[in-house]
Parts: sequence; C-alpha cells; structure tokens
Amino acid sequence: MTNPTDPAINGAESLVHTLLAAGVDTCFSNPGTSEMHFVAALDHIPGMRSVLTLQEGVATGAADGYYRMAGKTACTLLHLGPGLANGLSNLHNAKKAGSGVLNIIGEHAQSHIDLDAPLTSDIEGIARPVSHWVHSSKSVGDLGADAVQAVQAANTAPGQVAALILPSDTAWTEGGIVADPQPAPQRPDFDRSQLRAATTALSGPDSLLLLGGAALTEDNLLLAGRISAATGCALLSEWANARMDRGAGRVTVGRVPYPIDQALKVLAPYKRIVLVGARAPIGFFAYPGKPAVLTADGAEIIHLAHTGSDLAAALVALCDGAGASATPPAHVAKAAVPDKPKGGLTPDNIADLLGRAIPEGAVVVDESVTTGRSFFPATQGAPKHVWLNNCGGSIGYGLPVAIGAAIAAPKAKVMALTGDGSAMYTLQALWTMARENLDVTVVIFANRSYRILRGELTNVGVGNPGPRAIDMLSLDRPNLDWVQMARGMGVEGVAVTDCDGLEAALADGLAMSGPYLIEAVM
Amino acid sequence: MTNPTDPAINGAESLVHTLLAAGVDTCFSNPGTSEMHFVAALDHIPGMRSVLTLQEGVATGAADGYYRMAGKTACTLLHLGPGLANGLSNLHNAKKAGSGVLNIIGEHAQSHIDLDAPLTSDIEGIARPVSHWVHSSKSVGDLGADAVQAVQAANTAPGQVAALILPSDTAWTEGGIVADPQPAPQRPDFDRSQLRAATTALSGPDSLLLLGGAALTEDNLLLAGRISAATGCALLSEWANARMDRGAGRVTVGRVPYPIDQALKVLAPYKRIVLVGARAPIGFFAYPGKPAVLTADGAEIIHLAHTGSDLAAALVALCDGAGASATPPAHVAKAAVPDKPKGGLTPDNIADLLGRAIPEGAVVVDESVTTGRSFFPATQGAPKHVWLNNCGGSIGYGLPVAIGAAIAAPKAKVMALTGDGSAMYTLQALWTMARENLDVTVVIFANRSYRILRGELTNVGVGNPGPRAIDMLSLDRPNLDWVQMARGMGVEGVAVTDCDGLEAALADGLAMSGPYLIEAVM
Repeated sequence: MTNPTDPAINGAESLVHTLLAAGVDTCFSNPGTSEMHFVAALDHIPGMRSVLTLQEGVATGAADGYYRMAGKTACTLLHLGPGLANGLSNLHNAKKAGSGVLNIIGEHAQSHIDLDAPLTSDIEGIARPVSHWVHSSKSVGDLGADAVQAVQAANTAPGQVAALILPSDTAWTEGGIVADPQPAPQRPDFDRSQLRAATTALSGPDSLLLLGGAALTEDNLLLAGRISAATGCALLSEWANARMDRGAGRVTVGRVPYPIDQALKVLAPYKRIVLVGARAPIGFFAYPGKPAVLTADGAEIIHLAHTGSDLAAALVALCDGAGASATPPAHVAKAAVPDKPKGGLTPDNIADLLGRAIPEGAVVVDESVTTGRSFFPATQGAPKHVWLNNCGGSIGYGLPVAIGAAIAAPKAKVMALTGDGSAMYTLQALWTMARENLDVTVVIFANRSYRILRGELTNVGVGNPGPRAIDMLSLDRPNLDWVQMARGMGVEGVAVTDCDGLEAALADGLAMSGPYLIEAVM
Repeated sequence: MTNPTDPAINGAESLVHTLLAAGVDTCFSNPGTSEMHFVAALDHIPGMRSVLTLQEGVATGAADGYYRMAGKTACTLLHLGPGLANGLSNLHNAKKAGSGVLNIIGEHAQSHIDLDAPLTSDIEGIARPVSHWVHSSKSVGDLGADAVQAVQAANTAPGQVAALILPSDTAWTEGGIVADPQPAPQRPDFDRSQLRAATTALSGPDSLLLLGGAALTEDNLLLAGRISAATGCALLSEWANARMDRGAGRVTVGRVPYPIDQALKVLAPYKRIVLVGARAPIGFFAYPGKPAVLTADGAEIIHLAHTGSDLAAALVALCDGAGASATPPAHVAKAAVPDKPKGGLTPDNIADLLGRAIPEGAVVVDESVTTGRSFFPATQGAPKHVWLNNCGGSIGYGLPVAIGAAIAAPKAKVMALTGDGSAMYTLQALWTMARENLDVTVVIFANRSYRILRGELTNVGVGNPGPRAIDMLSLDRPNLDWVQMARGMGVEGVAVTDCDGLEAALADGLAMSGPYLIEAVM
C-alpha cells in the first residue's frame, strides 16, 4: 500500500484516490446526504469525471454503455437503498450484457442503521439479485483495499456488477489508506476438451457456429468468417449482443430472431452447434404449447467457450483445426447503400434510411424492439460501426446506454434507436445528454403502443383481445409529444412522418455535435 | 371456496375474481408478456379499474396514495423482476408510510426459470427488502387462496406491502379456484401496561404527546386536543406523516422539524414523551458530532401504542385518564387567510399563497422538501383538508401518490406540491394524470437544485464546497422547462415567477376538473 497524499485523508478521499489509481475515472452520480463526503472528495481531487443524472436508472445504464465502449469500468454514486433500487433494472441489463459496473452506494453511519431511519433499508439485499459481488466497507482502514477488490470483481470477464456499500462514517473518518491497483483479471482458457468435437462438428450447412460476447469483435468475426468458408458451417449470433462490430468489409452475422416461430424456423436446419461466447438458444419467454429450447430436437450442442473465457483463442484454435488460417473469409459485407424509400415510416423504410445514414465509426444503441427487427440486413453494408443490444430485456436501457457510450467514445456519432414505450422509462437521460453536450442522435419510433405485446397476446393464446386489454398496451390517449419533452430538457428535436422527413432529420442530427431528437411517427 | 363462474377458468381468472371479492378493484399496471393472461382476464371480467403507467415507480406510488385515501388496498401489475425493481423505491416509501399495497408480479413459466432467459431474475430476492409478505404461487389450484392471504397481509394495520409472484403457467393453466374473502385483520390493542405511566407522564409543558399514523385523523386529533387542554402537555407529530387531517376547526399539531439543529431545539424541553402511533424521534441522517437520538438526554419515553395498534382506543384511554372526555380541546385551528404576499416566490410567500388557495376537502401531497418547511403554519387555518408526507425519504413519491389519491377520492381537489428534483424522478406520472383526467393541480418548486443537499454539505462538515461539488447538486445547465415537458405528456401548464402569477395559476388550476401544472420559478 502506498499513500500519495496527506496521511490524514478520510475514507472518501482514500476511495477516490484508489479508484483513480485503478483506472476508474468516470462516475455517473445522483448523490444524497450520505454521499456528501464522496462529493467533497471529488471536489478537490482532480481526475474523476462526474456526470449528474436525474434518476439512477440513467446512471447505471450509462455505466453499462461506458463499459461496452471503453472496455473498462465506470463507477456510479447512488444514494442508499432507494437510489440503488431506482438503478436496479439497468443493472439487471448490465449483468446480462456482461458489463463491468462498480456501484458505490452510500449507507447511513453504522451507528445509525439500527435506528431504522426513513431511508434505512437492506442495501445488501437490494443489491444481491443484480450483483456478482456485494460488500459493505465497515472500516476506514479497509476501504481502499475493498475498493480494489470491487474493481477486480467488475473487471472480471466479460464484466460483472459490483456493489461497494459505503457507510457515511467510513467515508468521513480519517485514516484512509490508498490501495494499489491490481492487474486486470485474465480471461481463463476456453474448454480445450471440447476442441476436437467442435472441429469435427463444424462441417457443412447443417452445422452452426453460434457467437456471442467478445466473439463479435472485428478480428474474431474475421476468424469466424474463415472457419465458415473452410467448413461450410453457418454463422449466427445471439438475439441480443452487448457489442457487435459491423459494416462493410467486416464478416457479417445474423441474429437468432426474437419471435418464437421465426427462431424455431431459423435454427431447425442445424444438427451440430458450436457455442463460442454464446449460450444455447432458448425462448425469451415460455409460450403455451411451444418449446422453450429453440434448437432442433437431437441437435448436438458443443460448449467450446463460455462468454467469460478466451474467445479469441477458441476461434484461432477452431480456425487452425479447419486449416483455415489463410482462407479468405465468407460473409464479408460489401459496401451497399439501400435505395431511398418513399412514403410513410414503415419498419422496412426506416431500416433502409438507417442503412443510408449510419456514418463511419458510429455507435448504434438499439432498443427499437418491434420496429427494429428488419434493421440488420439493411445496415450491414453501411460504413464500419458498432451495434449494441439490450441483453437483459428490461426496457429503458437505450437512452442511458447512449450516454455512457458517448462519454467513452467522444469522437463517435452515437445513434440511439428506441421505441417510444422504452424511451419513456428513462427519458430523464435527455437532460444529461444536453448538460454534457453529448453527440447523440436519438430516434424515437413512435408507434404509440407497446407493440410487441400485441404479438405476445397472440403467442400466449389470447387470440381476440378486447378494448380493455388493448387499452392497457396503448400509449395514445394522449399521444406523447417527444419534441416538447426533449425541449423541456434542453434537447432540440423534430417530429417526422415520412421518409423524406426522416432522411433530412437524420442528416441534421448527424451533422450536429450535440444531442438531437427525432420523433419518427409511425 | 365457492366458484361463481365457469369451472374451467384459468389461474389468472381465479385471481381476478378473488381480488374483486376481497374488495381489490383498482390495478396500477405496466404489464409484459408474462402478464398477458391477467390482462386478458381483466378484459372480460368486469369490475377492476386498470390504470396504465409508463414506469412502475408510478404504479407503486399510486397504490400507496390510493391506500392512504381509500383506506383499502389496490394492486399493481408488474412485469417480472425488472418491473418490480423499477417500482421498488416507491414501495420502500409505501412500506415506511404503512400503506397496504398488493403487488402482482409476473414470472416466467416455472419450466422456463432454470433456462435463465434474459429477463429471469431473483424476484423474491428483489421483493423481500421492501415487502412484509412474499410468496410465489406455484399451483393454479392454490392461487385464489394465496391471493386472499396476500390481501390479508396488505390489509394488516397500518398497511403492509405484499408481493404475490405469479408464474405465467400458473396464470394460464385451467383449474382456477376462486377463494372467499376473509374479514379484515383487526388492529391489536395498544400496550395497556403503559397506560398508567403514560397518564402520569402527560402533565405540564415539559411533557409531549407525540402522534403518528392513524392518530392524526380528525377524531383522534380531537382526543389529543382534549388531553392537551386538560394536562398542559404539548402535541407534535412526526416529521413525515402518511396522512394528517388539517384545517380550520380541527386540532392542529406541528411536526418535528427535519433540520437536525431545529429538531434538537424543538424537542429539548420535553422530559416525558408518550408515543401514540409515532416512533421515538431520531435523525433522518447521522451527522458527525451531532446526536442521532433527538430527544433530550434522560427524557422518559413511553411506548403506549405502536402504529399498527388501536390508536383510537389508546387516545380514548388517555383522555379518560386525564378526565378530559368533555374538556374543550386545545390547539383548534381558527379559520385564517394569510395576507396576500407580494414580489418573488420565496418559501414564505408560497406558503401564504397556499394558505389562501387550499380548498375545502383538498388532498395535499407534499414533496416540497426545502421549499415546504414553512407551509404548515400558513395553511393550518385553511378549510379542512388532508396532508400527505413522504415517509420513506426516497424522492419521486409525490406525483405518483397524487394519482392514487385522485383515483381514491375523485371528488377532492388534489394538490401535488413537489420540488423539481423530486418530480423528475417519476415525471411519467403526468401522462397517467392526463389519460385518466385526474383532478390534480401540480406545483413544481423550481429552485433548480437539490437545494436540500447544499445544507447537508454543511451539516456533514463540508463547509466550503467548490464548483465541482456544487455542480453535482445543481439542476441548471440546462434549466428544466416543466411546462414543455407537461405538454409533451398531455398536461397543460404555466410557469410563474411571482406571487401574482402563482395566485392566478392556482386559481386556474383549482377551477379545472383535470390535471394542470404550475412551474413556480424561484
């Protein structure tokens, strides 16, 4: 342990120094009384970028997006159990995405907890369901070391959710000790015992290499493309991917569809499936009378590399096994610009307009739900870009993740594509985009309903919903006016109703260097 | 058990029938796929009012407000663990307020849970920290009986939070059995062993009768006023009260102040304190070098009646013991109209304007935080009204609670008084107010900061905050435009900057029969 500063620093100061030394230099915050010493420490210790959010779901989602693009952990600063609770659903999403997030959660002074004050709650209990690592730091002398452990937990591949609970007396007491950073945990090897079986399995069009997680980087996709070319196997990715490199010149892979019947159909041909960073495909939900396991009956499934393991090594080994190290890759996307569509804003028209608009190096945050199901084919020939999905299924992930992505990748254009129902969950994110002048073009697909649920009613066997059921899935009465809401939070915007309007608005938004909102009325 | 309907009803249908029979006829919802059979059941079974919310914090807060005004339990319908998670902080507030809330939380089909789909989470684990009762209903035949137990748990005085987890296969399987309602649980007796000590203690101005919970109804306050008149004891209530009857002609009681130094000063004179529905006063937070227990050293504290017990009986017994059954009550508020203030919008000016505006029978939902600290004296002479505080301290309670109050008390004018920082947490509530055309006048106190935290920085010993700390507590840059945000959700509004403007706007809002938003720029 070293202590670069005054030996009389308090716990909060030791925590900030320790985090900075460990490379954690961004904090998405909404503090309260119990976090004031941490705020004070940020005030006089340089180096930590503090980003204020107006609801904690924005903070936790931003940390998720930051990790996906920066490849390192940001922290959040949350006020007691209720502040953590507000951020919980986006931590659920981060956990499912394999994003590293370090939550620093203020707690009452330890002598105060038993008094059961109004804000007292079981913080560990609230944290545990969404966290891989939970710890209350009960001594000022231990806090620095605890923080290092928390960072290590968050940085464990593919990335984990860590909760460091900070009683206010631990923060304000003098005697803080700054702890030295530890080297980032290494990814463990993939399952070499499965390599021979996997190499044998990948042969011909009835075999599938299913990719997920870090297997979807440009370099790893290139390996997958070589394997496919040499073996004839098909390539797919999971329905939701934390981050996928895409665009012209890169090996392109489709996704297992969300709708249950389409997923079953897409996966039906495959008798042998090798998993690299992916899990065996299952239904997003159970539906009466339909299977939950989406792969064909009797399909052989080979678990070569779980998402936290060394996926690059697994793909190199598969490539070598197939003798494909120098084989030109299959499925390389050619540069392509869709024809300009005309008329109203259908999902297919929007897909074509996005394919025409996505700029080089863009980060596309996709929470487009039903509208976005046809975005992939139309955008694969766009300039190189990155695509982020919601891996946890809890809506309200898109706008916050866009904040974190924009802060992690300040030179990139970020495009946040989101359904209106989803965007309403965390619309407070727009204010933080304005405050930080983040380069995010937000497109709201305003179909004015939880459209996905109309299909799901049918899937669960409710064939003929009545007006009361439909009303519970509708966002009209009144219609939301996204342009007014955005202006109220300092973000300019425009509503468009046809292809010409959306193309012009995308051009305007992408030409700006700050946030812009487009309400695409469908 | 009786079954009033087709014997082939499914679980969801048995649940809806059972809830209706038990008097639960209002559902604040945001459903997803796993709740579609419940939605379908609501579609064809009449009697349940379904209120759609666009974020679950609105749903749970509305159920809290509903219970406070209706005196009976509403249910929520929440989508899996993440939907519950979004509603968690307002359930924390409901729990601390002693409000009965029955959460119905959809879960995957039981065969699907082990597959760990994207939305799978530990729902019981998420529910437990904010719930008194948690149960997963694993069999269609048990669901009706489980629902009755859940209603009983929610209706246990003063009111509890119950979580009934509903796997989708339990909902969709046929064989539902409607369960008969049970009589509402009775409040247990107060602690009669303390009656003699309490009667003796209340004597003279150094004794205090501290009231909370149901001790603050008009009738119970009348008893307290008689006791005070006969014994000379002081009367106070807790800082935050779930519901207090107020206004001209009623016995008026102050509140223990929030700021630690003021609270210590107010409580210093009292050597003997009798608690009826209240807890012994403690600090909202711990502060370095200040006491956590707010009562004077050596004060005798007598726990006569905890908040779930029969508070009316306790006050009757105290009144009898003091020979005060016919004594004219002390502290009866006289009708009073504050002089019209002039100039800018200070907390004191706003208090006077509210004292002039509150109409007969109004329900005031108070989340005014720093702005509202002087509201009580200026409003005690207004026509009879009801005042609701945030008992859990998690901000974002006000607008949702106003929804529930307006639905429970459709003839009342509801006034939602809220700080801007608090209102941003659950601003989606405005849309539900518009959709349901609820008679709510919203007043946003736009001081454009987390003003309370500026004071708290000083209280925790940070005397001289720098610009980075202040920036983390400021809501300017950009300013929020509440009128635009409200219009975006279908609620008309106006911004005012001085006393004339606020008085006119209050008159306009209170003359309408639907929602109206006033941004009071301070």
